[in-house]
Amino acid sequence: MTLLETTCAAIREPDLAVRERTQEILDRKTKPRRSLGRLEDLAAAIAAMRGTSELPLPEKAIVVMAADHGVAQEGVSAYPQEVTAQMLANFEGGGAAINVLARQLGIRLEVVDMGVGSPTANFVLAPAMSLDQARTHITRGIETAQTLVRDGITLIGLGDMGIANTTASSAMTAAFFGLDPELVVGRGTGIDDEGLARKIEVIRRALALHQPDPRDGLGVLAALGGFEIAGLAGVVLGAAAQRVPVVLDGFITSVAALAAARIAPAAGKYLIASHRSVEQGHTAILEDLGLAPLLDLDLRLGEGSGAALSMGLIESAVRILAEMATFDSAGVTDAGA
Amino acid sequence: MTLLETTCAAIREPDLAVRERTQEILDRKTKPRRSLGRLEDLAAAIAAMRGTSELPLPEKAIVVMAADHGVAQEGVSAYPQEVTAQMLANFEGGGAAINVLARQLGIRLEVVDMGVGSPTANFVLAPAMSLDQARTHITRGIETAQTLVRDGITLIGLGDMGIANTTASSAMTAAFFGLDPELVVGRGTGIDDEGLARKIEVIRRALALHQPDPRDGLGVLAALGGFEIAGLAGVVLGAAAQRVPVVLDGFITSVAALAAARIAPAAGKYLIASHRSVEQGHTAILEDLGLAPLLDLDLRLGEGSGAALSMGLIESAVRILAEMATFDSAGVTDAGA
Repeated sequence: MTLLETTCAAIREPDLAVRERTQEILDRKTKPRRSLGRLEDLAAAIAAMRGTSELPLPEKAIVVMAADHGVAQEGVSAYPQEVTAQMLANFEGGGAAINVLARQLGIRLEVVDMGVGSPTANFVLAPAMSLDQARTHITRGIETAQTLVRDGITLIGLGDMGIANTTASSAMTAAFFGLDPELVVGRGTGIDDEGLARKIEVIRRALALHQPDPRDGLGVLAALGGFEIAGLAGVVLGAAAQRVPVVLDGFITSVAALAAARIAPAAGKYLIASHRSVEQGHTAILEDLGLAPLLDLDLRLGEGSGAALSMGLIESAVRILAEMATFDSAGVTDAGA
Repeated sequence: MTLLETTCAAIREPDLAVRERTQEILDRKTKPRRSLGRLEDLAAAIAAMRGTSELPLPEKAIVVMAADHGVAQEGVSAYPQEVTAQMLANFEGGGAAINVLARQLGIRLEVVDMGVGSPTANFVLAPAMSLDQARTHITRGIETAQTLVRDGITLIGLGDMGIANTTASSAMTAAFFGLDPELVVGRGTGIDDEGLARKIEVIRRALALHQPDPRDGLGVLAALGGFEIAGLAGVVLGAAAQRVPVVLDGFITSVAALAAARIAPAAGKYLIASHRSVEQGHTAILEDLGLAPLLDLDLRLGEGSGAALSMGLIESAVRILAEMATFDSAGVTDAGA
């Protein structure tokens, strides 16, 4: 079997008994029952994923995958293609938003060049990549997750960089849900009305050309995706196989996770949604995956910026579970409310 | 003049020219314009409050004020009154939720006993406190803010502890907005249906007895408030007078801030809303103050827990402004999008 196959076969559902036990532990902490709302849900969900209520502090990493897209030739982005490579250099130099946030929050930042300067094919004319290429890039994502887990990482966030990748993500979303492109296309990094109309038309032509099967995660990814999107889908699979929760960023990382969940459905149970992107396709994906984002801050940057911001909250949830006193230990009267 | 009077007189509006200049600085950072959404708004708003775009990292503190309430005699809380003192001890022992979050986020925690064991009068029978008592407790809050600022604190969060203080806060909210108690009362720490009906009836009787003038912040506070609520109003006034932003927690701290804004309207311009409480009265207050909360996590604990969680995001906003590279410095093409 290939690494992709063994990885998919290794993914188990989170442990619901652990989830219940964790909520009972939280109910004994010095606070009214459930008064920490979604932080408590988070702690219990992570415990179920990890298979234990005894959660150490999360060791955090964000994987930012970058690649170029042939469809950029169609004039679907507000920025020229060379910005992908320039931003990769900016990540190396430590000046991008994700660098600032990773430093603040103690997050290891792993930037992976998945094909900057070597774009996918223009998917208006041909599949973005072959099925074999898709498998290769997914496998590289699995290996990236494996390396991080071997290094002790227990919480993995996703980030993306790639001029024109909201076009690829919108096309994939339209394909997965059978939606008209108009309903899943947004302004990306800030395209104008004319560009938006072009973006919709490009996706319409691509869908007509490839007619992808919405149940076929790999096929949709190969026809309409990108190298970084395939890689990120692989990170999701690799993390889920090792019971490591994955924090989504915005639209692009979410469509990658959706592809992973189409390839191996149980992988979808290891996801935490960080924020609701202003890209309209994002909401459809979150609903399909059954996820409610933690933040709603009108972000539309990518790079893992939303994932980083929410990792602070996720760490808070784990600390509440690990560090708070119980009614008994603190001598506080428990009214059971 | 008294300290309360000089403090109110010293509060100036935030500097809108600085706000604009700060947004221009953010527009030169390596990201599409406004793509960090509300983080950018936050950075610009804080710069306007502080009067400069050159923001150092915030030095953070949370003031948790605790007190007992005479109205607890009416059986309006799920917990017995002694829990206020027990939780004060829990804060000292480091086992409460706010201790955990303050440790994580590097927040100085200042717990102030404003009247634990010496409750206000039962406001169904008499004003909760005299106008002089209200002034004294507000002044103590001003002094607390002054001490923190003298110690170098540049961002102050609010927290509360006091069994029955959602009843006091609901009564104040009904009085300020002329709303029927039914529309501003919630379950607090978890009261049942019967208790909820009792809470509404108690507030109805108190409003009929005191008939407070909704424009009179001090009068509403004295008739229906609590010692910790008066103190927190004072913290808001003291911080605003020194151009220090104040991070609200949930319902109780927000009603304290509303009282402060009724006493000195410009103080309302130094507020940052952290989360939307499940208490229904909270939304009315946030609307009146023109604030949109950063988080919506179904919290209803108090103690400053929501303020602490949002301080991480606020620090991110300041770091983005201070640390990110510009298009020029990083050699990234600026499409102006």
